[in-house]
Amino acid sequence: MSVAEMTDLKEYCLEVARRAKAASFQLAQVSGAQKNRWLKESAAALRARTDEIIAANQLDLAAAPDYGLTAAAVDRLRLTVDRIDGIAAALEEIAALRDPIGEVIESSRRPNGLEVSKVRVPLGVVFFIYESRPNVTADAAAICLKSGNAVILRGGKEAIHSNQAIVRLLGEAAKKNGIPEDAVQLVATTDRAAVGHFLGLDELIDVAIPRGGEGLIRRVAAEARMPVIKHFAGNCHIYIDAAADLETAIAVTVNSKCHRLGVCNAAESLLVHADVASEYLPQIAAALIENGIEIRGDQPTCELVPQATAATDEDYDTEYLGPVISAKVVGSIHEAIKHINAHGSHHTDAILTRDLAAARMFAAAVDSAAVMVNASTRFNDGGEFGLGAEIGISTDKFHARGPCGLKELTSYKYVVYGEGQIRQ
Amino acid sequence: MSVAEMTDLKEYCLEVARRAKAASFQLAQVSGAQKNRWLKESAAALRARTDEIIAANQLDLAAAPDYGLTAAAVDRLRLTVDRIDGIAAALEEIAALRDPIGEVIESSRRPNGLEVSKVRVPLGVVFFIYESRPNVTADAAAICLKSGNAVILRGGKEAIHSNQAIVRLLGEAAKKNGIPEDAVQLVATTDRAAVGHFLGLDELIDVAIPRGGEGLIRRVAAEARMPVIKHFAGNCHIYIDAAADLETAIAVTVNSKCHRLGVCNAAESLLVHADVASEYLPQIAAALIENGIEIRGDQPTCELVPQATAATDEDYDTEYLGPVISAKVVGSIHEAIKHINAHGSHHTDAILTRDLAAARMFAAAVDSAAVMVNASTRFNDGGEFGLGAEIGISTDKFHARGPCGLKELTSYKYVVYGEGQIRQ
Repeated sequence: MSVAEMTDLKEYCLEVARRAKAASFQLAQVSGAQKNRWLKESAAALRARTDEIIAANQLDLAAAPDYGLTAAAVDRLRLTVDRIDGIAAALEEIAALRDPIGEVIESSRRPNGLEVSKVRVPLGVVFFIYESRPNVTADAAAICLKSGNAVILRGGKEAIHSNQAIVRLLGEAAKKNGIPEDAVQLVATTDRAAVGHFLGLDELIDVAIPRGGEGLIRRVAAEARMPVIKHFAGNCHIYIDAAADLETAIAVTVNSKCHRLGVCNAAESLLVHADVASEYLPQIAAALIENGIEIRGDQPTCELVPQATAATDEDYDTEYLGPVISAKVVGSIHEAIKHINAHGSHHTDAILTRDLAAARMFAAAVDSAAVMVNASTRFNDGGEFGLGAEIGISTDKFHARGPCGLKELTSYKYVVYGEGQIRQ
Repeated sequence: MSVAEMTDLKEYCLEVARRAKAASFQLAQVSGAQKNRWLKESAAALRARTDEIIAANQLDLAAAPDYGLTAAAVDRLRLTVDRIDGIAAALEEIAALRDPIGEVIESSRRPNGLEVSKVRVPLGVVFFIYESRPNVTADAAAICLKSGNAVILRGGKEAIHSNQAIVRLLGEAAKKNGIPEDAVQLVATTDRAAVGHFLGLDELIDVAIPRGGEGLIRRVAAEARMPVIKHFAGNCHIYIDAAADLETAIAVTVNSKCHRLGVCNAAESLLVHADVASEYLPQIAAALIENGIEIRGDQPTCELVPQATAATDEDYDTEYLGPVISAKVVGSIHEAIKHINAHGSHHTDAILTRDLAAARMFAAAVDSAAVMVNASTRFNDGGEFGLGAEIGISTDKFHARGPCGLKELTSYKYVVYGEGQIRQ
């Protein structure tokens, strides 16, 4: 790439961000009804113009071998009539959610008569960076706009034609409903350098949200000058307390580990209290092994479970995202908590117990976005928590923690009404 | 400084941060009653041992000429019996505030019976960097601990002896009340390199809060690997709408500009609607000039106010923190809003109007932490808003915006109770 082209790319990114910022100011004033009409008309257009989107998707599928996509990746990329209907239905669900903007979060009348309100407002501009699946395009645009934010979408190169077709349609519906077209912009270039340029524009972009592999997320977190909503990993734990119910422990452990292997809220490590290890661990292990899971354990685990292999220190820090679980016998709930806070990724951790004091202690002391008591780690999810729609899960403590829905894409301002009050 | 000493400094900072992190885990479990006892005993100790603190303060005052402190800076550094009583009273006021930790912010029972609660928790470890006044030491420690956070205090070298005396006393009161002593640590070195080391420890420190001049804040924001709560500047505006009441406009403008010149919520720029400029601007200007304020205006302003001098473009972007105000005649409320969003610092901006639609539009469209309608900009303050205590004001939109009190130093976690629920 020549210097002239590099300058052009930088200028292009700056222009996209400036347009997004200008759109965000307009968008902050758009009514909930307008946003919902946009969502519903977009859904209708997706269904009406399915052929057009499938045709664009065909171009991406044809190019897939050039990108060396796996069969699974090609499947995720493929759009069908059913899948497009699913995308449309998701937009309609977001339309049905309550508009978060304008909510008075708190208010008070001060002794001097000032009325102080804390009012929910959009963050402004979201830069959303994601990998292949084109359904994410419509979903992310809908969540951002419903929460009053302009969005700059940077999808994977593998899905560029599908994404363009979807965004074109969303833009047309926006125009019809008095929503600035620049509220949803798809980055026109697949040049990776563009991401770096956007991540430097902290005066124009209010938050960056990467969704994809850990490499992408680490790159975004390292380069971004603006705040990032992210989670790096989900090394989630199941702790079987001395007072756990065995049947429940087996069912929850198997569900947490085996329901879906490749997701961030899947269990990756099993801790069992020494008092029940000899009775419980062989049975829990048998159920896991029956589901095709390999167990890597400490010495007591290996003694109780002949099929287990010896775990290394590294195993306890590993998010397998596959059919492996680490296991360890702990002497107390305190040891379990300490292990989780040291080796976990502050994502989702569960205790199995019938003991109230143990449940309360675990819930208070485990420093994670979600703590489950007698429930599967798989429930840490915006839909399961009733947030309605989710743009990601955060393991940070700042701003948003856990599933991020509409509210997590908002800020607030103080609005103060008086009749000429001055400070004494 | 030798390499060995540099390594020592880095190790020292790491050790302080590790201790703070360990203390933060303990602190998250300390009861509100314990924290309040600590605050009250600390207040009592401050009053009982005033002599000890004044003696330490004398050492700082004696060294002040070496640091080239101005008379005003020496005055801010000086501790007297009355000032120490004021510090103690502030701790008692914080004790009287409601404990934010453990509050259930939201909760729901899901269709599958899961009970999902969003529970307020501490952020963890705060790194607080500030300049000279030693009263800030006790205040910051109290706000951080009351909100369940461990704090690493980095005060100015000019106040090191006073700060050490205060922190020693707070530490003794902590020990007596079952609060980990490492919950409040004062950085023992005044080496500036230490700040850089701490700002790199994002695994151990959850938030950095700089309080001081813009240079300090910019340095912290640029170097910090963790989130920062900050405001760079307060270029606050007063907009006199066509429907403003003249007497109110004069009183609020004078109060906003003149009540205290050197503070972030003082007005720095005056915008007047063209329809009322010829009548109002001369009278408002006269009141400002009477209070010793210099006016720098655009051409229409200079024509209406003979004492005004011509403003440069730079004037409209300047936070004077002194007896100067920029002024401009605007053709409409839209022009005023656009000017404020482009030139302001998103801190505090006020409209003077009797027109409901104008007030509502201004409140919605001005992108600032606080928008005042018919009230002085000086009211953007934790105490004035009823937050009770304030550790800073944020002009960011992420996490906390406006005055930051106890709640703004917290995060939340999801705690989920079930009876063995698994995901289908």
